[in-house]
Amino acid sequence: MAFTVRPIERVVDELARLPGIGPKTAQRLTYHLLRVPSEQALALATAIMQLKENVVFCSSCFNITETSPCSICENPQRDRTRICVVEEPLDVIAIERTGQYDGRYHVLHGALSPIEGIGPDELKVRELLRRLEPGEIEEVILATNPNLEGDATAMYLTRLIQPMGIAVTRLARGLPMGGDLEYADEITLSNALAGRSRL
Amino acid sequence: MAFTVRPIERVVDELARLPGIGPKTAQRLTYHLLRVPSEQALALATAIMQLKENVVFCSSCFNITETSPCSICENPQRDRTRICVVEEPLDVIAIERTGQYDGRYHVLHGALSPIEGIGPDELKVRELLRRLEPGEIEEVILATNPNLEGDATAMYLTRLIQPMGIAVTRLARGLPMGGDLEYADEITLSNALAGRSRL
Repeated sequence: MAFTVRPIERVVDELARLPGIGPKTAQRLTYHLLRVPSEQALALATAIMQLKENVVFCSSCFNITETSPCSICENPQRDRTRICVVEEPLDVIAIERTGQYDGRYHVLHGALSPIEGIGPDELKVRELLRRLEPGEIEEVILATNPNLEGDATAMYLTRLIQPMGIAVTRLARGLPMGGDLEYADEITLSNALAGRSRL
Repeated sequence: MAFTVRPIERVVDELARLPGIGPKTAQRLTYHLLRVPSEQALALATAIMQLKENVVFCSSCFNITETSPCSICENPQRDRTRICVVEEPLDVIAIERTGQYDGRYHVLHGALSPIEGIGPDELKVRELLRRLEPGEIEEVILATNPNLEGDATAMYLTRLIQPMGIAVTRLARGLPMGGDLEYADEITLSNALAGRSRL
């Protein structure tokens, strides 16, 4: 390009690194930011800066939180006999939105994927097993994504947890195969939760 | 939502204010930023912060630039007899990319739109007229958008500039390259027909 303005190019480049944002969209967003009042651009920049500073992982469930343990783990109203295992923090939000689950969570931060070199040690598997006191925990709901990696992860966890005498369930196959859990609508997700089956 | 983390919500909210970014996309982007190394998130935040600080309008053409006058206005290689009038800074980049224009620009920062209350005083029209020294400027190319507002702006400028003895031209209307004739709208096709050229 014959004509470039470095501060603009820098924002375009950084925005274009985000998933789903191509160079054209990045350019449009950047020029939009140039047009809006300074306060709005500053608010976005500040929010992003504080994102990492003020966010930690819950020491118990490894969800993203401001204070550890997180508000769900600390809530005495929540059923302490049930743990719902998910891949990502966004999945917690998706399940919370259904309003159908009152247990606690465990965020694995990924799924098993031999191709990408992600084994159990890369996930919060050990930390999950440590939470499973038989007698206290009655059910582990495996809510990994309904795809290859999610299924493999669920199978792997089932083999580890079932011998402990804990019921292991999996979200019902109302979810479309190959889909992404966080995109499921509330009703589909509610149905899947209600129809979970013993493995 | 039952479970929210304020620093996350803040980024989601700010991102969702950008054009074309809905709440779901904003959420995905935010959680992506949580996953990437701190340096990358910081680089984005810093770039946005410096965007407004280090960018000014060129005192001559009102394009966005780091130094005023901008590199195009200052370039002695550029044809000083031609001014291409565009609505937005992004339009300058689009025309520069063609490599087919070596004159200078004038950025109006919008188009006439009585409905939105945008009259000539809201645009850099007076500033354009001030640049038009007859004898020095031979041609003004009106490259406003091919829509109602762009056409109205072009018509308005033509009436002001033509009496000064300066040639006023407008970008050709016709079929876009790579397009499909059967999908062209009636106005585009009418324009293409009206502007047909002998081979």
